[in-house]
Amino acid sequence: MKHDQAAGSGRITLLTDFGTRDGYVAAMRGVIAGIAPDASVDDASHDVPAGDVAAAAWALGNYWRFYPAGTVHVAVVDPGVGSERRALAAQVDDRFFVAPDNGVLTRVLADSHTARLVGIEARAFMNDVVSNTFHGRDIFAPAAAHLVMGIPLDRLGPPIDDPVRLDILLPVRTGQTIRGRVVHVDRFGNLVTNVPAAWVGPRAHVRFAATDLGEVRTTFSDVLPGHAVALVGSAGYLEIGIRDGDAARTLWKGIGTEVVVEG
Amino acid sequence: MKHDQAAGSGRITLLTDFGTRDGYVAAMRGVIAGIAPDASVDDASHDVPAGDVAAAAWALGNYWRFYPAGTVHVAVVDPGVGSERRALAAQVDDRFFVAPDNGVLTRVLADSHTARLVGIEARAFMNDVVSNTFHGRDIFAPAAAHLVMGIPLDRLGPPIDDPVRLDILLPVRTGQTIRGRVVHVDRFGNLVTNVPAAWVGPRAHVRFAATDLGEVRTTFSDVLPGHAVALVGSAGYLEIGIRDGDAARTLWKGIGTEVVVEG
Amino acid sequence: MKHDQAAGSGRITLLTDFGTRDGYVAAMRGVIAGIAPDASVDDASHDVPAGDVAAAAWALGNYWRFYPAGTVHVAVVDPGVGSERRALAAQVDDRFFVAPDNGVLTRVLADSHTARLVGIEARAFMNDVVSNTFHGRDIFAPAAAHLVMGIPLDRLGPPIDDPVRLDILLPVRTGQTIRGRVVHVDRFGNLVTNVPAAWVGPRAHVRFAATDLGEVRTTFSDVLPGHAVALVGSAGYLEIGIRDGDAARTLWKGIGTEVVVEG
Repeated sequence: MKHDQAAGSGRITLLTDFGTRDGYVAAMRGVIAGIAPDASVDDASHDVPAGDVAAAAWALGNYWRFYPAGTVHVAVVDPGVGSERRALAAQVDDRFFVAPDNGVLTRVLADSHTARLVGIEARAFMNDVVSNTFHGRDIFAPAAAHLVMGIPLDRLGPPIDDPVRLDILLPVRTGQTIRGRVVHVDRFGNLVTNVPAAWVGPRAHVRFAATDLGEVRTTFSDVLPGHAVALVGSAGYLEIGIRDGDAARTLWKGIGTEVVVEG
Repeated sequence: MKHDQAAGSGRITLLTDFGTRDGYVAAMRGVIAGIAPDASVDDASHDVPAGDVAAAAWALGNYWRFYPAGTVHVAVVDPGVGSERRALAAQVDDRFFVAPDNGVLTRVLADSHTARLVGIEARAFMNDVVSNTFHGRDIFAPAAAHLVMGIPLDRLGPPIDDPVRLDILLPVRTGQTIRGRVVHVDRFGNLVTNVPAAWVGPRAHVRFAATDLGEVRTTFSDVLPGHAVALVGSAGYLEIGIRDGDAARTLWKGIGTEVVVEG
Repeated sequence: MKHDQAAGSGRITLLTDFGTRDGYVAAMRGVIAGIAPDASVDDASHDVPAGDVAAAAWALGNYWRFYPAGTVHVAVVDPGVGSERRALAAQVDDRFFVAPDNGVLTRVLADSHTARLVGIEARAFMNDVVSNTFHGRDIFAPAAAHLVMGIPLDRLGPPIDDPVRLDILLPVRTGQTIRGRVVHVDRFGNLVTNVPAAWVGPRAHVRFAATDLGEVRTTFSDVLPGHAVALVGSAGYLEIGIRDGDAARTLWKGIGTEVVVEG
């Protein structure tokens, strides 16, 4: 059964916007240690900008598939904690996920072939006391620990087939035209879009804001220094960069700017 | 014997104000790996504000009890390193602690039922070379590693019965009146006090600074948007918040502000 | 064989300037988990100032030797990624290293007795797809994981005997005179130099910038409060400090300032 793979791996990753200095992440780790003492727990990040679900979705998309089958990825950027938003557990292509239902899984679900989702409702797999404000500790951490111990997904709660998705992260294809957006600026100032490499033909033509960038290129060295270039970056998405330069500063563009790809 | 539980868990947590970029935390981890190679070592935080013992005590209080029995919690925020301040090892309710004697264990000791403390003096459980400035690496890390390997607490040094406590973290009860203080401002601007939930009756009356907040409430939605509320937060302490707002900014109050609870 | 020690330890450390919020470090951890599922992976730091190879070399020097034999230390501060700079794997005094050939191993090589280096070239030990921009994930993480699994160093690629070294980190001795430099300012404002303790005689005379500091001392309390002092710090290097003060602010000196030691 699929859930046995989680038990076999014994690996959990944590992504939050909690920072570490209040000890809240450590509380989550303590809860996991009490339920799944032999699990390996990796800190993916606790520095996601506070409440920035799209940034968390982006980061999660950069690593989930590099982990082995059976890994349980926890993503708790949860500005809606205490409201009626649902708590999700999911199995996607043999990895597991635990997260609030706010779109943080958008990239994972867009990249995947198969996905099963449930709403976490079973009290038996939560902490004895469940606070209104800290579901990371009281709901998500114990759910992840139980999954890694081999509890079947569907024991956590009922199926869900309409998870929240963030439109900003999803490009739109109309015929030969793809309309996407910048969703991330990396530390070099490259503008990373939401257009996946697989959608971009080898001779596709790229327009960015009001500028025609010509054909998609293979490397920065395909253009002259100081010139803008569109290419597929290491995350597997179309990026806009400047050879030997900082595209975000030079082009004065940022998150949300539209890119149009033809062909 | 109690100390066998530490050996059984094999888990250590680290809390410091070192940051990570100088490699000092990694040196502590390396020392632990040399003594207790199979121990799991969790980073609780290395971002405690420099020298802020009260902040470290607060953070430690948020996670220590969520870890399983036998865990060894290391807390090295140590502005007095190199002076005559003592080095402590402690067993509190089946968890272990290693820390400078400067009050960082105040919340742990206030929350606990049983505590045994010793001063770390035995050279056999320190590094071969002990610097004047880096006891985290040379004294506290090896002490934690030896504890997790099952060394009895009392082999580290003589008993201590007068550990330093931080008054700021301790509320005072006089008859039916509890006087506490704000000890933490969380990321939502809620003002967290040092008054534990167990001290607050279900109909207790709360005054904060010059304001009468009325009875303690159960959730934010018990008051109108924009109104102040006193309730028990997820850390298990009385908090002052503003529904849909930021209490620290709206009320212009911060750490040290007095709260008075009647009943 | 030496490489068996790596397999025995099963421990990897990671040092980068990636930060954590983009999920790139987690991608490296995922790659390692896929190849060496039982390895312990420690985060040394991901907060090295961006592109600051000397700072990374300094940090690495503070912890590498505290880890047990067989540990694989990964250091990816790599401003030259995508250029022709070589990728190194090394064995130094029974620890292993994986890093770009840009001087980040300068302190390790200066401190060591024996070193063997190879250039990482064998495709079999890289990811299936190797990006131009993320060798941490595609080259260094898999190399570290294969080393920890016991792959002999020389299977990664051909020997290298001319690794890049950073002159700034290396002091120069001429007869009885040592000329060094400040290479780090610690959080207390102490000015840490590149002059190792072993080079400094017990009665050595120290000049710093235009100031004669007299003999090297044992502790801060060997001078009056507010006075400058030269002593050997906890990292094992000559430091310039101010008793009860901040040398960096008081002396207005920083990284690169020369120190001259006689005898």
